[in-house]
Amino acid sequence: MKIAVDIMGGDFAPEAIVEGVAMAATNLPKDVQLVLIGQQRVIETLLPKYTTEPLSNIEIVHAEDVIEMGEHPTKALSQKPNSSIGVGFKLLKEKQVDAFCSAGNTGAMHVGALFSIKAIEGVMRPCIAGFVPQLGGGHAVMLDIGANADCKPEMLAQFGEIGSVYAQATFGIENPRVALMNIGSEEQKGSLVAQAAYQLLKESRRINFVGNIEGNDMFFDKADVIVTDGFTGNALFKLGESIYALTKKRGISDEFLDKTNYESVGGSPIVGVNGNVIIAHGISSALAIKNMIGLAIRQVQSDAYNKIAQMLS
Amino acid sequence: MKIAVDIMGGDFAPEAIVEGVAMAATNLPKDVQLVLIGQQRVIETLLPKYTTEPLSNIEIVHAEDVIEMGEHPTKALSQKPNSSIGVGFKLLKEKQVDAFCSAGNTGAMHVGALFSIKAIEGVMRPCIAGFVPQLGGGHAVMLDIGANADCKPEMLAQFGEIGSVYAQATFGIENPRVALMNIGSEEQKGSLVAQAAYQLLKESRRINFVGNIEGNDMFFDKADVIVTDGFTGNALFKLGESIYALTKKRGISDEFLDKTNYESVGGSPIVGVNGNVIIAHGISSALAIKNMIGLAIRQVQSDAYNKIAQMLS
Repeated sequence: MKIAVDIMGGDFAPEAIVEGVAMAATNLPKDVQLVLIGQQRVIETLLPKYTTEPLSNIEIVHAEDVIEMGEHPTKALSQKPNSSIGVGFKLLKEKQVDAFCSAGNTGAMHVGALFSIKAIEGVMRPCIAGFVPQLGGGHAVMLDIGANADCKPEMLAQFGEIGSVYAQATFGIENPRVALMNIGSEEQKGSLVAQAAYQLLKESRRINFVGNIEGNDMFFDKADVIVTDGFTGNALFKLGESIYALTKKRGISDEFLDKTNYESVGGSPIVGVNGNVIIAHGISSALAIKNMIGLAIRQVQSDAYNKIAQMLS
Repeated sequence: MKIAVDIMGGDFAPEAIVEGVAMAATNLPKDVQLVLIGQQRVIETLLPKYTTEPLSNIEIVHAEDVIEMGEHPTKALSQKPNSSIGVGFKLLKEKQVDAFCSAGNTGAMHVGALFSIKAIEGVMRPCIAGFVPQLGGGHAVMLDIGANADCKPEMLAQFGEIGSVYAQATFGIENPRVALMNIGSEEQKGSLVAQAAYQLLKESRRINFVGNIEGNDMFFDKADVIVTDGFTGNALFKLGESIYALTKKRGISDEFLDKTNYESVGGSPIVGVNGNVIIAHGISSALAIKNMIGLAIRQVQSDAYNKIAQMLS
C-alpha cells in the first residue's frame, strides 16, 4: 500500500513533516510505501538530516506549488493544480496511492476530497471524525468535528450510520454503541435538530443506538460513536484536546490525560468520501505526523470507505 | 438581605441542603438572613444535627409540597402552589426575600422565574450563566449554558450585553472582554447563526467585543464573557466540569483543576429576570449549597439585575 504525505502543509512544514515521515519509515510494515509530495529539492535536502541511510520505503513526487494556510480553498485548488495538495488528490483519484495525508489548509483538503474522489453515493455530507480517548481504554469516534457547522437531522442520523461502520472497520468494535450528543438524557430534550435526529437514529436499523449522552460523558465509556453537528462537535473536541495543555500548564503528567494531546492520534479522517483522506492539525509536530501515518495505514487496511459504500448501496 | 433556600429540592435533599445552610450560617455577614423553605417538621428535625445552637440568622417558612425532579415544570407549578419552589417564587415576587436558590427541578425553577418575577423588559430570553475558572485567576461568565437550546443571532448578541453587565457588577471586571464561542477565529467562520451573531456583537456599543474564541480557549484567559447558545454552551460547560471527575479518577489533585468541580461555585444564576434566582446541580452536596449561598449574597450586593434593566431601558 502507498501512503501519500504532503510535505509542504503545516505550520512547521517542511521540517516537522519530513522528520515525522522519517520516524514512521524506520518501523513500517513491509508492504507500506510512503510517497512524499512536495518540492523535490527541499525533501532531498531535509531527508538526510533525519535518516542515516537512504530508505527504500520512501519515494518522492515533485510538486512545485504550495497552498498557504490563509488561501481560499476552491480558488487555490483551481489556480494551483501543481500544489502538493492538488497533486496528492490527483494521485489518490488515480489510485496511485491508497491514502493522502496533510497538515495543510484544512478547507483545501476538504474541498479537494469532494472535487476529486467525491462523496460516496448516498452520503449527504462527508464529515470529519475525531477520536476521543476513553477512560476504560480505546477511543470513541466523534463526528462531525468541524466540516458541517449547520446540520439537518438526516445528516446527523447518517453520521451515526457512517461512524458505526467506521468504528467497526477501523477499531474492530463489534456492534458499536452509537450515542447522540445532547443536553439531557430524555429523548424530547435538546434543540429541534437534536430532537428530530434522536427519532431518526432510534428508527435506524443499521445501528445500535443507545440514546443521548451529555458533555460530561465524553471520556467516560458511554459510547463508541458520538454523533454531533460540526459546530458543537468542533467546540467539544477542541475543549477535550485542551485538557492536555491545561495539565501541562499545571505540571501534571498522566497516562490517560496525556492521550487528549492531538499528537497521540495525529489526524482526523474525512469520512464519507471514496478514499482515505486524513487531515492533521496545522501545528503538527513530527510525532503527530508519525502517528497520522499509522492511522492512515490502519484505515487502508480496514477498507472502511468501501464498507460504508456497501452499507448505503 | 434575605436569601431563600429550597430545602426539599435536590438528589440529596433535605439532608445535604440543611447541612449546607448550617455551614453557611456560621459565617454569614451580619445583615444576611437565610430563609429555609420546606416542610417545617423536617427542617426542625434536621437543623440540630448540623448546628450546635439555635441560629438567629435562620428562619423557616413552611411549604408542604415538593416538586419532584421528573415532574413537568408548568403542570407541577400550577398544581402545587404550596411546593417549596412555588412558595419560594411567591416570596421573591413579593420582595420578602432578595434571592431564591434551589437544587430542585431546573425546569420548574426556570418556568417559575418567568411566570413570577418575569423577564426584564427588553430581554428576549432569560438564560442560565455558568462560571468557568480561568488559569490566570477568576472566572469567565458563560451564557447560555442550557435554557435556550435554539437561539437566534439577536438572542446571542443580547447574551453578550447581559453577560457584560453581570460580569462587571458581580465580579467587578471593568470593561469585560466579550467573546463569541465559535469554530474558527475569522468572522466569517461558524454556523449561520454564529456568523450573524458575530456581526451584531461587533456592532453593539454596549460591549467590548473581542471576536471569536474556540473550545480550546475556554480556560485560557481569552475572555471575561463567553457567548454561546444553550445547546453548545451546555455541552461545553458539562465537559468542562467533568475534568474534575476525570482528575479524581486518575488520582490527581490540583488547585486549578479542582475548580472545575461544580461544587466550587455551587450554582448558576438565571440571568435576565427581575430578581436573583440561582439554580444548583441536582447532585448538590452541602459544600455546593454553602457556596451557592455565597454566590447569592454576592449577586444581591451587586444589584446585577437592576443594572441589566437600566442598560436595556
